[in-house]
Amino acid sequence: MWDFFSTALKDAYGSADRLGWVHAAAAGVDSLLFDELVESPVTVTNARGIFDRPIAEFVLSYILMHAKSSIGSLSDQAAKKWNRRSTRDIAGTKALIVGTGAIGRGIARRLKAVDIDVTGAGSRARSGDADFGEVIDSATLPEHVAGFDWVIDIAPLTEKTERLIGAEAFAAMDDTAVFINVGRGDTVDTDALVTALRDGQIGGAGLDVFDEEPLPAGHPLWSMDNVIITPHMSGDTDGWRMRLAEQFHALFEQYLAGEQFPHTVDKKLGYVR
Amino acid sequence: MWDFFSTALKDAYGSADRLGWVHAAAAGVDSLLFDELVESPVTVTNARGIFDRPIAEFVLSYILMHAKSSIGSLSDQAAKKWNRRSTRDIAGTKALIVGTGAIGRGIARRLKAVDIDVTGAGSRARSGDADFGEVIDSATLPEHVAGFDWVIDIAPLTEKTERLIGAEAFAAMDDTAVFINVGRGDTVDTDALVTALRDGQIGGAGLDVFDEEPLPAGHPLWSMDNVIITPHMSGDTDGWRMRLAEQFHALFEQYLAGEQFPHTVDKKLGYVR
Repeated sequence: MWDFFSTALKDAYGSADRLGWVHAAAAGVDSLLFDELVESPVTVTNARGIFDRPIAEFVLSYILMHAKSSIGSLSDQAAKKWNRRSTRDIAGTKALIVGTGAIGRGIARRLKAVDIDVTGAGSRARSGDADFGEVIDSATLPEHVAGFDWVIDIAPLTEKTERLIGAEAFAAMDDTAVFINVGRGDTVDTDALVTALRDGQIGGAGLDVFDEEPLPAGHPLWSMDNVIITPHMSGDTDGWRMRLAEQFHALFEQYLAGEQFPHTVDKKLGYVR
Repeated sequence: MWDFFSTALKDAYGSADRLGWVHAAAAGVDSLLFDELVESPVTVTNARGIFDRPIAEFVLSYILMHAKSSIGSLSDQAAKKWNRRSTRDIAGTKALIVGTGAIGRGIARRLKAVDIDVTGAGSRARSGDADFGEVIDSATLPEHVAGFDWVIDIAPLTEKTERLIGAEAFAAMDDTAVFINVGRGDTVDTDALVTALRDGQIGGAGLDVFDEEPLPAGHPLWSMDNVIITPHMSGDTDGWRMRLAEQFHALFEQYLAGEQFPHTVDKKLGYVR
């Protein structure tokens, strides 16, 4: 499955009576996990690992553009305006990463490398995590989200995470906080996000994913100040399709040899455990 | 001296008959090192250390904006255009940092933290440098500048570095290379830079400093594709003036106590050795 939003398999599933394995050349498998497939013995694998570092770099680019006032600099440049001002250090700022899977961990490592403090939010609270240290229960986000400069959403889309980040969470964020989404648009209540941005409940956003993609031309997010919109491409760096193909090829060799896959999707959870 | 371009001391030097010490609340001291001061016993100190990390973060923001096609994303956003495309990884790319002083070292450490390979260029070739590994002689730039994705200029302005980076160096760079200047505009032949950008000898630029500042409204750099212009602010992060004042205050206490300064400018060289 190359297209992470495709319903082709669901549509044709009735005739797929010898299906043993589905590989998604994507990180998120939400569109694939329809009930019959979840209940079946079919194995599902995904592109685990391929997108970790590219997405982490993309998140860092959003953070730096906000901290260093890059949108303002480009618009001053267009007006040929020399507008010297101070910007923000990123070292010492605090990031909350919602989603503690492989990509969330890649983001955590990259942000820590530039001296950003990270905390995780996942399916259960815990301490002593190798990448995050402390992990909060993402069901309790509104209680914990204050004090973070960057709230980064890379949660897998499941029943538990659908519209996980809504009005209550945005209201609890610092009014200077920047919300970044590189996961799935449906984990956010988009209307609440628009309201939070419009009312200054948060300071800005960097959005690569949306509940409707492409983002409709009339959507208010396109033209909001301090919002950076990119078209679901945070993980797509030169050569990405070949890397996905090579990963599938390696798994296919293992499949033919009857070996166990190094990772499979937990279909009930909706992600690789 | 708060203003790094001020000639106030030079103008008044004749009457400064009891002067013992000049502190520049800036990294570069080029405007201060007029002949009479260089020949005098007057001690010169600078803001060593204050700008290292802020400038390193700013350089990383330029690099990520170029790698992740951020200028294109913001212009697509203005046109409400969903234009999915692949961008570049920064991990594994190669940076040449021209200038091996404290700020150059800060840049090297920050870039290495995100897996960019770094090489230095300084006043003499050497290997085994703690931050750079290999350092090339910056007088031989045209011979060594090929193969770098990012050429970053943070050289102090001295007789040796004036217009150090000119037509020959730009011609030798990869046509995808991005030239970044966070040092002094006069270390570059600006006309050669404009030609290199216009003719596609290099791929882009990120420029915070210019041979004339503010950059004149009619200057061709303002409106060149793939050039990011910022107004000499790469080191200025919130609280910077207070940090400069605190550094001066600490030095002043040492001065009163008759202690040795932790660092002084080598006035003949034009920088802290």
